[in-house]
Amino acid sequence: MSDADIRRIDELSTSAALRLLGTVSFGRVAFTLHALPAIRPATHVLDEGDVIIRSHSGSELNSAVGQIVAYEAGVISPEDHLGWSVSVTGKAELVSGSAAERCELLLRPWSGLRPGALIRIPPEFVSGYALRNGTP
Amino acid sequence: MSDADIRRIDELSTSAALRLLGTVSFGRVAFTLHALPAIRPATHVLDEGDVIIRSHSGSELNSAVGQIVAYEAGVISPEDHLGWSVSVTGKAELVSGSAAERCELLLRPWSGLRPGALIRIPPEFVSGYALRNGTP
Repeated sequence: MSDADIRRIDELSTSAALRLLGTVSFGRVAFTLHALPAIRPATHVLDEGDVIIRSHSGSELNSAVGQIVAYEAGVISPEDHLGWSVSVTGKAELVSGSAAERCELLLRPWSGLRPGALIRIPPEFVSGYALRNGTP
Repeated sequence: MSDADIRRIDELSTSAALRLLGTVSFGRVAFTLHALPAIRPATHVLDEGDVIIRSHSGSELNSAVGQIVAYEAGVISPEDHLGWSVSVTGKAELVSGSAAERCELLLRPWSGLRPGALIRIPPEFVSGYALRNGTP
């Protein structure tokens, strides 16, 4: 077994996990759709410590409003699967008021696609890990 | 608005979606953990039309056995978010017998990490879309 075969999982602190989440703009939300689990890609920004998401895929994600949902984002190499992944869990709510104006600017809808709702996920639970080369 | 700003979403047929799923080895499973929604990265192969997954992150994914779960994989550009995403939904079961031997060879555990269980997800529902440049 060469050194390159040795990998380890490092758990991330909450602050490190949220910091990493802010470095990417794309992830997946898990919610319940027609009484079944569903995963849909979404874009995100962080706003005052909360995760704000917007769907790319029409209005299905509106079903998530009012639910406890999980949102995961990360950077993981398709070749060696090294990288990091962060998940947050919280109750999804529609974004309104001044936060909506702020987030509209940060999460602009794509031309030619009907924009979905802006949805806030307060990160009540945060977990994350990094998968790296090297011995534990 | 330039042509590059025009994007469209194309829904994929079930056969096209499963074919694309077979071209990648990595995705995310959504399941219930401690009565809350959870998303965890996993590697996958297709075996006789079913999705077989193995977790990278220890034993939490074992909680998914017996549940209806969703599994999503895709290739989406972090820059322009063009690409494709496929989701399958089905009841997660432990893989056993000759299928386990086949899949052990295809989904080998990583050196230095304790391997998780092999879990089969028969794709009872399949959905997928491609996000491309161009007019609908």
